[in-house]
Amino acid sequence: MKKKLDPLIKALGHPFNDVQLLDLALTHRSQGNHNNERLEFLGDSIVNFLIAEDLYERFPEAREGQLSRLRARQVKGATLAEVAREFNLGDYLRLGSGELKSGGYRRDSILADSLEAVIGAIYLDAGMQVARERVLDWFSGRLDNLTLNDTQKDPKTRLQEFLQSRQFALPRYEVVQVEGEAHSQLFTVECVIEQLDQYPLGIGPSRRHAEQEAAQKALQALEVK
Amino acid sequence: MKKKLDPLIKALGHPFNDVQLLDLALTHRSQGNHNNERLEFLGDSIVNFLIAEDLYERFPEAREGQLSRLRARQVKGATLAEVAREFNLGDYLRLGSGELKSGGYRRDSILADSLEAVIGAIYLDAGMQVARERVLDWFSGRLDNLTLNDTQKDPKTRLQEFLQSRQFALPRYEVVQVEGEAHSQLFTVECVIEQLDQYPLGIGPSRRHAEQEAAQKALQALEVK
Repeated sequence: MKKKLDPLIKALGHPFNDVQLLDLALTHRSQGNHNNERLEFLGDSIVNFLIAEDLYERFPEAREGQLSRLRARQVKGATLAEVAREFNLGDYLRLGSGELKSGGYRRDSILADSLEAVIGAIYLDAGMQVARERVLDWFSGRLDNLTLNDTQKDPKTRLQEFLQSRQFALPRYEVVQVEGEAHSQLFTVECVIEQLDQYPLGIGPSRRHAEQEAAQKALQALEVK
Repeated sequence: MKKKLDPLIKALGHPFNDVQLLDLALTHRSQGNHNNERLEFLGDSIVNFLIAEDLYERFPEAREGQLSRLRARQVKGATLAEVAREFNLGDYLRLGSGELKSGGYRRDSILADSLEAVIGAIYLDAGMQVARERVLDWFSGRLDNLTLNDTQKDPKTRLQEFLQSRQFALPRYEVVQVEGEAHSQLFTVECVIEQLDQYPLGIGPSRRHAEQEAAQKALQALEVK
């Protein structure tokens, strides 16, 4: 088993004392009762704490709401899955046959959960300081690029708050076009703000992306900073 | 300042090296920009981790969902506020005049947030091991009394899942009576399950309590374990 995991261990940067902990961290619940869910529970709380601590120190002027938003972006499933992909974590997962067939090793949620389990495993193997060094190393590029400007709320939220503060009705988002095949669709969404006579369009690979783009255009049209 | 905080420091069980950290942890945002919100952000992640770690070790057989439910109960606002009251934390809070007048020092949310800030302050003052000892000491009675039976979901959730699994319509909860004065009301709620001809009543100091009691009675009547 150890040999097979060697490239992953090297990528993670932690030579496990007890490689069975890593093996367990890679075992999805579709494999049976002895799986990584408990390690994921532990690892989730550790990565939350480590990112919180780093942001607390990194942004001494940030307010609590800003720190919360910065952290939410780092520990959300999509980001954790991105980090997991940098280690090719999906190639090492032990999945039941159903999940294997359906491509579970590519799914964001399974990758994110497994990365949290790996963090739990490193903590149990070597303690908080080693876990801190590994997690901050993996996230360093993302953390170094953060600025307090990143703490702005997303466009849809800002648009909603702007309209509410002025007693206008909330915007409506309508899908006006879907192009392309099943796995590479392009959505066009209209953001309808009748009272202000604004109907900007947004285009994106998902309905959500298209809505955010449309909201961003509405904010620009309404000159909301 | 130090003298005034002495009884609190004794109750918390941590002689601060930097008592200004404790002072900041006790400063509500109603006092101004220099307040405890950043410490609360940090402390929240620490208490989440410490309770997760304790439960992970304490219940080696528990599944992730059980651990999550056990933790949720320990770190929810009402429990943190309970712990804060054991230290009379409210007596030491620095609140703006508006919050003082409206009795903010008695509010669960302010007490819970302040306790998290105190945990963040202890961590910054003395590190994780000291924070671990303090938090587990404060929570020891509650943690020692936990059993895996406590991981049962609440009655309303269980009733809903039972009915859904049998394709029955969801129950309706109707307030049938409210007695008493504004601050000591007693709610009577009927849990209506027409298809099974069940209409049990629940009584409690809030609508939520009364609903849970009514759901519990429905579960008993339907002999759901």
